[in-house]
Amino acid sequence: MSDEHSTAGSYVHEGEEFERDMDYIPDRLTRAGGEPVDHRAGTGKESPADAPRWPVEAGRYRLAAAKACPWANRAIIVRRLLGLEDAIGLGLAGPTHDARSWTFDLDPGGKDPVLGIERLQEAYFARYPDYPKGITVPAIVEVESGQVVTNDFPWITHDFFFEWTDHHRDGAPNLWPEKTRDEMEDVMKRVFTEVNNGVYRCGFAGSQEAYESAYDRLWTALDWLEERLSTRRYLMGETITEADVRLFTTLARFDPVYHGHFKCNRAKLTEMPALWGYARDLFQTPGFGDTTDFEQIKRHYYYVHIDINPTQIVPTGPDVSVWSTPHHREELGGSPFGDGTPPA
Amino acid sequence: MSDEHSTAGSYVHEGEEFERDMDYIPDRLTRAGGEPVDHRAGTGKESPADAPRWPVEAGRYRLAAAKACPWANRAIIVRRLLGLEDAIGLGLAGPTHDARSWTFDLDPGGKDPVLGIERLQEAYFARYPDYPKGITVPAIVEVESGQVVTNDFPWITHDFFFEWTDHHRDGAPNLWPEKTRDEMEDVMKRVFTEVNNGVYRCGFAGSQEAYESAYDRLWTALDWLEERLSTRRYLMGETITEADVRLFTTLARFDPVYHGHFKCNRAKLTEMPALWGYARDLFQTPGFGDTTDFEQIKRHYYYVHIDINPTQIVPTGPDVSVWSTPHHREELGGSPFGDGTPPA
Repeated sequence: MSDEHSTAGSYVHEGEEFERDMDYIPDRLTRAGGEPVDHRAGTGKESPADAPRWPVEAGRYRLAAAKACPWANRAIIVRRLLGLEDAIGLGLAGPTHDARSWTFDLDPGGKDPVLGIERLQEAYFARYPDYPKGITVPAIVEVESGQVVTNDFPWITHDFFFEWTDHHRDGAPNLWPEKTRDEMEDVMKRVFTEVNNGVYRCGFAGSQEAYESAYDRLWTALDWLEERLSTRRYLMGETITEADVRLFTTLARFDPVYHGHFKCNRAKLTEMPALWGYARDLFQTPGFGDTTDFEQIKRHYYYVHIDINPTQIVPTGPDVSVWSTPHHREELGGSPFGDGTPPA
Repeated sequence: MSDEHSTAGSYVHEGEEFERDMDYIPDRLTRAGGEPVDHRAGTGKESPADAPRWPVEAGRYRLAAAKACPWANRAIIVRRLLGLEDAIGLGLAGPTHDARSWTFDLDPGGKDPVLGIERLQEAYFARYPDYPKGITVPAIVEVESGQVVTNDFPWITHDFFFEWTDHHRDGAPNLWPEKTRDEMEDVMKRVFTEVNNGVYRCGFAGSQEAYESAYDRLWTALDWLEERLSTRRYLMGETITEADVRLFTTLARFDPVYHGHFKCNRAKLTEMPALWGYARDLFQTPGFGDTTDFEQIKRHYYYVHIDINPTQIVPTGPDVSVWSTPHHREELGGSPFGDGTPPA
């Protein structure tokens, strides 16, 4: 099965349900000398004990991402919320890619200015010359060796928070509060399987039956979230957590892409009052809307998935100015950054 | 260029703008002995003077249609509004067709019970053994000879009104009021080129540029209609006319199909207050909603257009229960059938 944020060639497999390949390069970036803080990172299981550890060190690594990709967008948001910009550089691939690799076609000369490569694939091959799988973002690349360290996305943002603490800005928010940790793990796992991945299960269904079953699963989960968010300002209560980051990047893509392209069309996000207020609340918070690029998002999905959009035509709609309208979520109380402050 | 309600095989032609082939079999059904009433039927030009004339006669012809097709749906609605059910039989093809023909697969044994044919193509071949074009609905078929008389859809409904007068029910509405005839011709022509056909121009665009130009044309026209209908209950004022029938069949397909499948996605119909109230007003009027079949509509477009939906998966959404909600259009005054009455 091909992966979505990867560059494998075909997405829909006739007669089959879409299954995401979750077998990533499992390396961790951890605080030098210490034992890594091990949670489940919303994945439902702990990181493998024998996963190689690379030491946290400012300037040593670069985050390779793409604004188009929801999984990479998470890492861009968390890096900014925590103020890790000076410690970890950011290389941004363009919104479209071919069957082989994401490419740095937005950069002058078509090369990432720090890594000096045109194709992210080169960093994967520097690590594993015969790397057999799709090339995914986000990925952490060691600048000097040019090698990919890890592309295991739930752990990348997890470790940004737990392992890169010495490099956080003053006022960085507590994205993984201890108080609600167990519930948050469950919420993130359900959001991942049913929503983040659930939209892909609809879009890449290989049969009418697989699609209909995926659609029902997705809307069951969205109904749950709509209810949950009708009384809570954020997923875990009064402040923004990692769980919100993970839900947001899917919601931002819902009307521009998933509603039409992936046939997630019971309703638009704008028709779900609590979710729509919540999504706008986040969008209007520093770190979220300012890292969201609707044009790149649309261009990525509609251009890359030729097996569901063979014309590669990118829709002009929807009107995204509505993201800036008042959401009135302050009425639920809470404070986005808790005891912390917004990023600059 | 292929036609949409026809069965020609491919719809999108790379690099080209979609153009509807308007070269239909131009025969007319006219009142025996009289000169046909000649208007423009919303086409912008008069019917060819040398088009063969067939005499109006109850029981002699059958309307071959399909609930899926907006052009055929018009004829189904008008037949019912005027009470022509006893004079003109109705054969309904199923929602999907292959590259050769619409088929009577919904009927027992897969045959139209009156014409005795499986494929509408047989009636076209009975008339022209080498008929070279796509097989379209609506079509009028002479029952005894089994031959297609005409498939020229704007004239079919025009003649139902002007030529079949002796067979209209008591209380049949005046669908072509003299008072506003000239303006109505202009409105129908603009609705046809910019909206009825405009959605296809978006969906079957052969390049990004052709799509974007089609999208702008469509929304310019929808903005005009939104404004026009904010002060008028119906397109021509206080009562339902043929112009409303023609706009309605496109609006009914907007959210289920055109918004996603044809990328007409600046907004849903439900987001345009006047148009949405207007569409529901008509839907809740006898003759409109009761001849609208959302399941057949979705199945047709998503299953047949493999060059824009190669998986042939039909979306489950949107929720169509909203069509029954209050529209409050009575507040604009008017009366759907004027001096007439609703059909039974």
